[in-house]
Amino acid sequence: MSTQLYLGIDMGGTNIKIAVVNHKGEIIEETSIKTEIKQSPMNVIQSVIKRASALKNYAKTKNTGIGVAGDINCDNGVVRFSPNLPKWKNVKLKEIMEKLTGKKVIVDNDANTAAIGAFWLDAKGKPDNLICVTLGTGVGGGLIFNKKLYRGASCTAGEIGHITIDYNGRKCKCGNSGCSETYIGAKYVSEYAKNYLNKHRSAIIDRMTGKNYSLITPEILHDAAVKGDNSAIEIWRYVGEKLGIILAGVLNFANPDMIILCGGISHAGKFLTGPAKKEIKERAFKSAVKACKIKISRYTSKLGVVGAAMLANQ
Amino acid sequence: MSTQLYLGIDMGGTNIKIAVVNHKGEIIEETSIKTEIKQSPMNVIQSVIKRASALKNYAKTKNTGIGVAGDINCDNGVVRFSPNLPKWKNVKLKEIMEKLTGKKVIVDNDANTAAIGAFWLDAKGKPDNLICVTLGTGVGGGLIFNKKLYRGASCTAGEIGHITIDYNGRKCKCGNSGCSETYIGAKYVSEYAKNYLNKHRSAIIDRMTGKNYSLITPEILHDAAVKGDNSAIEIWRYVGEKLGIILAGVLNFANPDMIILCGGISHAGKFLTGPAKKEIKERAFKSAVKACKIKISRYTSKLGVVGAAMLANQ
Repeated sequence: MSTQLYLGIDMGGTNIKIAVVNHKGEIIEETSIKTEIKQSPMNVIQSVIKRASALKNYAKTKNTGIGVAGDINCDNGVVRFSPNLPKWKNVKLKEIMEKLTGKKVIVDNDANTAAIGAFWLDAKGKPDNLICVTLGTGVGGGLIFNKKLYRGASCTAGEIGHITIDYNGRKCKCGNSGCSETYIGAKYVSEYAKNYLNKHRSAIIDRMTGKNYSLITPEILHDAAVKGDNSAIEIWRYVGEKLGIILAGVLNFANPDMIILCGGISHAGKFLTGPAKKEIKERAFKSAVKACKIKISRYTSKLGVVGAAMLANQ
Repeated sequence: MSTQLYLGIDMGGTNIKIAVVNHKGEIIEETSIKTEIKQSPMNVIQSVIKRASALKNYAKTKNTGIGVAGDINCDNGVVRFSPNLPKWKNVKLKEIMEKLTGKKVIVDNDANTAAIGAFWLDAKGKPDNLICVTLGTGVGGGLIFNKKLYRGASCTAGEIGHITIDYNGRKCKCGNSGCSETYIGAKYVSEYAKNYLNKHRSAIIDRMTGKNYSLITPEILHDAAVKGDNSAIEIWRYVGEKLGIILAGVLNFANPDMIILCGGISHAGKFLTGPAKKEIKERAFKSAVKACKIKISRYTSKLGVVGAAMLANQ
């Protein structure tokens, strides 16, 4: 019996990744094209199919999975809106792709495909219940329950960034107040860092930014922390603590076997996870803490495309 | 083909309810005994079996499900600790019952059996994803995902009362701070009411309690609200608002089709759910709000015993 193969497509804001993946989540063949945000959706879709069908194993792939950032109707595969693809409004991606390729197509949002990717790449398909937290500009989550993607009643499950950890906290763009995203989202981390550094100058960061704190990024803060900069370490402590508070709630509610962190902010590594784990230990139920492994993904750049392919396998 | 029947046992602090239930969650026959908290666990178990086996349909029941408040190991059916049964420490309830009855026995905590009960009684087994929130002294939760009980990695999933809604809030007995239970748990509701009434006297409540505010219970507050008492209505508004804040987070994270509220505090009805729904609408994602029905259980006293029986059917 030949191995079953799946086609995964990850529609990012910069590149569209395309891969042929086997039933274990291993990439057999991969390619990518630049995301042409000014092109019409139909032109983009045709470019993707052209590139995908040039892959040696394309003909052997069964179903296709596609991950897209934004508001996706996972039932009918319509991309209602995507921040990465400003020209895409209510694009019937599933229907168009199925017509053009003759393959079954499943579309979902990128937080869900990342979770499936983490389940196969970081966790090797083993845990029953895994939660993947994407720490980027936005804070997203994907839920794997009983080894399957859990989408909820209207495909919006997993919005970890929009659970409130301080009901009197500042207003979030979603309408809620004190959402975890307003503490650990990349924009807020940079803003917190700017305010902190105005009060606690750091020679290292001043050198890295030419004292222009609007240039501060999570990468700069990570590099400074690696160099032993106390201000950077303290900023990550603050962010890690807030991450720990929200994950403690998630542990008490969902009691997962594993939490995988991915996305830009997660590159802070132990500077982030050290304070987060301390906070979790103080706040969450002991048995839930004991049962849950928390790791940073080792495959951030592959999660989306592998997850999309394995979505097609669900 | 004769209908499959299941035996449900709900080990409450006052009564132990016993029922024969069919595959639709309908009670065919029921009975109860007083909970003899001073008796040894073995004596209590034997009394339960004696009473259960006197039921006409007992011999026709296949598996037995048992719900117990407290810390239950749902894998091996050991009752590690139960606040309702102070003599019970590490009681091998499943093993003992199976030996004595020859039937397969499944044991779980009462928040989980309540959720299964709500799924069958209030929701008629229809929604894919249902969350049952028990609003009593403690605030518990049971999760039904894809029509099955979701227990998590170590049987502790669903602890809605211990998600923090204010990370700087007051210390909870669980070790966390600002847990939702410290706002909407019965003890805290009574405490809030006492403080509120010391500042805003209420003739109706003064009459009902003889001005002794330590006598305030959720029932008194409900009765006063029904009589139009503004203080009572305002107290419920505060509690409902806090319930709404935590449920908004639950909606954003778990995107359920239905939330069922049960337990003493839920008897406040619209005085509680009105403000809660207003808060949810302001805070949660629109599509999640639209997808989720929120109801108060119409079967609070039956949820445990029916849920226990249907646990045996899972």
